[in-house]
Amino acid sequence: MKTKAYAAMSAGSPLVPFTFDRRDVGDHDVALKISYSGICHSDIHQVAEEWGPSIFPMVPGHEIAGIVSSVGSKVTNFKIGDAIGVGVFIDSCRVCDNCTTGLQQYCVKGMIGTYNGLESDGETVAMGGYSDLFVINEDYALHIPANLDLKGVAPLLCAGITLYSPIKRWNVSPGMHVAVMGLGGLGHMGVKFAVAMGAHVTVLSHSPGKEADAFAMGAHSFVATNNPDNFKSIQKSFDLILNTISAEVAIDDYLKLLKLDGTLVVVGIPGEPYKINVRNLLSGRRSIAGSMIGGLPEIQEMLDFCGKHNILSEVEVVSADYINEAYVRTVASDVKYRFVIDASTI
Amino acid sequence: MKTKAYAAMSAGSPLVPFTFDRRDVGDHDVALKISYSGICHSDIHQVAEEWGPSIFPMVPGHEIAGIVSSVGSKVTNFKIGDAIGVGVFIDSCRVCDNCTTGLQQYCVKGMIGTYNGLESDGETVAMGGYSDLFVINEDYALHIPANLDLKGVAPLLCAGITLYSPIKRWNVSPGMHVAVMGLGGLGHMGVKFAVAMGAHVTVLSHSPGKEADAFAMGAHSFVATNNPDNFKSIQKSFDLILNTISAEVAIDDYLKLLKLDGTLVVVGIPGEPYKINVRNLLSGRRSIAGSMIGGLPEIQEMLDFCGKHNILSEVEVVSADYINEAYVRTVASDVKYRFVIDASTI
Repeated sequence: MKTKAYAAMSAGSPLVPFTFDRRDVGDHDVALKISYSGICHSDIHQVAEEWGPSIFPMVPGHEIAGIVSSVGSKVTNFKIGDAIGVGVFIDSCRVCDNCTTGLQQYCVKGMIGTYNGLESDGETVAMGGYSDLFVINEDYALHIPANLDLKGVAPLLCAGITLYSPIKRWNVSPGMHVAVMGLGGLGHMGVKFAVAMGAHVTVLSHSPGKEADAFAMGAHSFVATNNPDNFKSIQKSFDLILNTISAEVAIDDYLKLLKLDGTLVVVGIPGEPYKINVRNLLSGRRSIAGSMIGGLPEIQEMLDFCGKHNILSEVEVVSADYINEAYVRTVASDVKYRFVIDASTI
Repeated sequence: MKTKAYAAMSAGSPLVPFTFDRRDVGDHDVALKISYSGICHSDIHQVAEEWGPSIFPMVPGHEIAGIVSSVGSKVTNFKIGDAIGVGVFIDSCRVCDNCTTGLQQYCVKGMIGTYNGLESDGETVAMGGYSDLFVINEDYALHIPANLDLKGVAPLLCAGITLYSPIKRWNVSPGMHVAVMGLGGLGHMGVKFAVAMGAHVTVLSHSPGKEADAFAMGAHSFVATNNPDNFKSIQKSFDLILNTISAEVAIDDYLKLLKLDGTLVVVGIPGEPYKINVRNLLSGRRSIAGSMIGGLPEIQEMLDFCGKHNILSEVEVVSADYINEAYVRTVASDVKYRFVIDASTI
């Protein structure tokens, strides 16, 4: 199927219009007309080959929302016209302990990424969501509740689940004190979810100018971290800290903000190793943990939760010819709070 | 009460015979004739002022086992002749959330240490267990089961509870795969407890010569970590890793040995910060946590557990005039597996 897209033709080069053939719709596949595709910071890392060798030409994009345009002969779960989402992976081994328990993101053979890798056949280069249409096995696609605007849904498929999953795993609930480090594409979803779960939510941000937005999203407190003095009054305050900051931070300063048995969960990947004074773990039996997106059942649960609570990502919709500028602005944290590409402009 | 002891008279100096007065037995105090006092690596750090300023003269020792010799008028919980233990702390604020839930080691005002600090009166310098007698408020002393040999009990009060507490907190139970990093004074207690809880236990040691001892203690597997190749076959193998190594280690190599949702618990304090590649946390939703000794109810539970399962520390009994040589050998990991001072030689 002839597909229009935007691609990086080599490492670090600007994205340009690009045409390629997607596979035809197999018996268990659905095709979708893409409506919106989010721009994730990980797209930028991979285009720049900052995470090891990439495959070019590369069509990035793993925050995809669209409408089903055709279905294979054996598809039972989708019909033409359904709102449909695709996230960070399009397949996995399906038989390992993690896949069979719905934790496909931790598939022991490695999940099959939505782009910058090979599809399940081991030959076809997977091409992502900066394109006008997509084909995916129905088992790895998600249903989008009908009441949600697809613009604000696209980023849920990566940024959203990246925060929803640890919020569920660490049982965020009323009475808990949760802090979110960084109010960006990831962080603002963490605020919305933790607030919806009933927690007392504090935003820890180095940008005092984001305070009003934080409160508008439901946060109960805002602490500007560009002033070290502000850390003093919030020592031992939080049950859970969600760290969405990929830049290097003095992680010890944040560990001290955890209560007894508190956990700091890292969901972004910094370029440099963390340096941790172990005393900050021992004093207070604290933990630091990692969490990576979420599995299919949990993504669906999140989308249903968003439908029920009318939760969406805050987005700036851009046309495809703005992608390169959007990349520059994303790196500069100059976006409120996620860019999504209007796929009709591709 | 005139007390004979061994003390360091200044930072880093050898321990020498020393005499001082302990307080008289108050209404709620018990006095004990010390039988054995363990030598903990933390004694050596504090004598050398490696953990910040110390108070001198210092009588170290917080692994104390003895026999009650007198009781105050209002003591209800001990009687003369009882076997009694004293651990790392002798008091705490008693009213904070952590104290009232039996987690005195995390007292928000700081526990009152057994030595190298001030007693609850804020004036008297606390003097530790390298001495012939001790006085303690009965609420902070432990009962030792009658069937246990006091020699092997003394190290339970610090080394033992340091491992027992995380083993309980992380629910070690049959079917779990537990690794213990380092087979020393701490590690060998971890092996014994985890085996007694029914787990499959692997010792990770850089000393291949300790393999026979590890198996004799009940370990099911032994991996010599001085050969990097040996790490390959045990990737993603463990639910829980207990790190008892205070020396610097390549912690990333060990994080990779954890299964999905596995935890590496640190119980020793290395001199340098840990350097952690966060990817090793994200891939597998792994955690690294700290744990610090245990609270009074848990220490008593451990002692009762040891009584029931006949668990003791492996010890080398030494006379008081051997303390300085024992320090040298402890630093060199040349002890099987804990030195205890025969207090009758002081």
